[in-house]
Amino acid sequence: MSSNRRFKLVRRPQGMPVDADFTLVTEATEALTPGQFLLRNHYASLDPAMRGWMDDRPSYVPPMVLNEPVRASTVGVVVESLNSDFPVGTWATGMLGIEDYSLCEPRGVTAIDPEAMPSVTNYLSLLGSAGLTAYFALLNVGQPKAGETVLVSGASGAVGSLVGQIAKLKGCRTVGIAGGPQKCDKLIREYGFDAAIDYRGKSQGDLVAAIHEAAPEGIDLQFENVGGDILDAGLLSLKRKGRVVLCGLISQYNSAPAPTHNLWQLIVKGAQIEGFILTHYIRQFGEAIPQLMAWANEGKVHMDEHIDEGIENTLPAFLRLFQGTNEGKMILKLA
Amino acid sequence: MSSNRRFKLVRRPQGMPVDADFTLVTEATEALTPGQFLLRNHYASLDPAMRGWMDDRPSYVPPMVLNEPVRASTVGVVVESLNSDFPVGTWATGMLGIEDYSLCEPRGVTAIDPEAMPSVTNYLSLLGSAGLTAYFALLNVGQPKAGETVLVSGASGAVGSLVGQIAKLKGCRTVGIAGGPQKCDKLIREYGFDAAIDYRGKSQGDLVAAIHEAAPEGIDLQFENVGGDILDAGLLSLKRKGRVVLCGLISQYNSAPAPTHNLWQLIVKGAQIEGFILTHYIRQFGEAIPQLMAWANEGKVHMDEHIDEGIENTLPAFLRLFQGTNEGKMILKLA
Repeated sequence: MSSNRRFKLVRRPQGMPVDADFTLVTEATEALTPGQFLLRNHYASLDPAMRGWMDDRPSYVPPMVLNEPVRASTVGVVVESLNSDFPVGTWATGMLGIEDYSLCEPRGVTAIDPEAMPSVTNYLSLLGSAGLTAYFALLNVGQPKAGETVLVSGASGAVGSLVGQIAKLKGCRTVGIAGGPQKCDKLIREYGFDAAIDYRGKSQGDLVAAIHEAAPEGIDLQFENVGGDILDAGLLSLKRKGRVVLCGLISQYNSAPAPTHNLWQLIVKGAQIEGFILTHYIRQFGEAIPQLMAWANEGKVHMDEHIDEGIENTLPAFLRLFQGTNEGKMILKLA
Repeated sequence: MSSNRRFKLVRRPQGMPVDADFTLVTEATEALTPGQFLLRNHYASLDPAMRGWMDDRPSYVPPMVLNEPVRASTVGVVVESLNSDFPVGTWATGMLGIEDYSLCEPRGVTAIDPEAMPSVTNYLSLLGSAGLTAYFALLNVGQPKAGETVLVSGASGAVGSLVGQIAKLKGCRTVGIAGGPQKCDKLIREYGFDAAIDYRGKSQGDLVAAIHEAAPEGIDLQFENVGGDILDAGLLSLKRKGRVVLCGLISQYNSAPAPTHNLWQLIVKGAQIEGFILTHYIRQFGEAIPQLMAWANEGKVHMDEHIDEGIENTLPAFLRLFQGTNEGKMILKLA
């Protein structure tokens, strides 16, 4: 039996999570029963959506359980097994917890080939919820057509950067919004955006003017990761019959929802907003993963990863998502 | 030449329109040039959307012109003509102005048969923009399916009451929201709603509870005429993959837009909001009008009309739309 460090939620955060909402404990791993196996978690994915799961309110997934490890997708390797489908040495991924070892049932855990991608962490980034979200939210909800102009907010983030790259593959013109000149440079140089807008220091009117300069004929498709003023500015910039994919509202995960003031634009433009939730696409993951793998191996898309190390650093690493200090998909190295 | 009383916009209203924004003048009618005809306006339609046209901002139609009659749909009869398609005695309707006489070109004016409907005013109600809005916004945008639950706000209004009736014809369960017990009674007795909710005195939480009581399994389709708290309550009551037709935001025509706080519901439910603007459906009016006429003549749908009399009463009649003191489609009798 190994000693297992587990990062547990002990109190539901009010607003931005703080140290006292969590505890790091060391416990013995439990003995396996038949069919179970023990996964040594090597990496955990840290995602904005996890903030929502910490609240005790009805949502698309049950809230995290108090006094249990924080729920997260991980990748790891089987170190003990009473399941012949997951022998010792198998790499696997699943929605598990931030802990050294997870006791697993096969349900919800998928064996993976660590050699099929440049890094096993890619299973938490390009092939994880961020990559799948970009894929389905853009292609199935947004349905971009060649020649259209796509506005992406949170464009330097994991989802936004991939949305920009896939939209380019589909023949669209892409305009990205991000915070700060460095991120904006990166949008152009690394992710191939046609134009980049730094939202920092800009009023809503400034933002609308900047969008107009980048896309004088307006926006066909707005891919929204942020909400608040940025969503409102985009609504003012939509073309007639424009579409908005509402993928995230990172501006409000830690606070009362930022209000939206410009829904009247939907009326005057006959435009629409559709919300995206990845869980509605679980049955189609099998289409997306080979396509994302192929694009990645052909060098057509990539996702930056920001890897912080150590279970004791979970909270500061997670908070980067809301401070905007991560540069790429946020991943925590556990082993 | 006749003397022509004309109700002109002389100043763009700030918030709720006031007397000083308008003037009633008497002018001589102009002489006809070939192709023109003079329409004696008998009735004018008063619609919430007219408030938006009074502002000087880009929208789906040009703003009203200062020092010109307030733009409105009217019905009237040709009293002088230099156009053989519109001989004297012809009844016609068009987007004209609040004035005794309108000098017309044939473009945008349609001859009508006053005998085809119970009252010639029906061309401004059931067959006018309110009726066509209800028809296309519900059927083309909302696409209700038999067995679905449809929530209608502003349900006792011209558009909302017809939406409720058409949704019933399509086999839906209908829940209406209106202000005050009298209107709520009317929803059930006159328009056939399955349930009625009085929003007055209710917090957003009370509204959500009342919607839940009326539709325990949630709302498939929300037909939104109001916005603000009512839209937010509806969003909280949507089913997975629910749809919202955003048809009007009467709560905010006269003020800064009422903010919407619950768009995050679109994400957790994979739901959507689509704005409706009647001008996108002009080419399809020819499908809707015979269907609405047939339903009306079969006694399957009707629209109440609230007719105030006299051009000098234009403003108080118009303001009823925002005070909620009209009982049916607001029409002004001019002759």
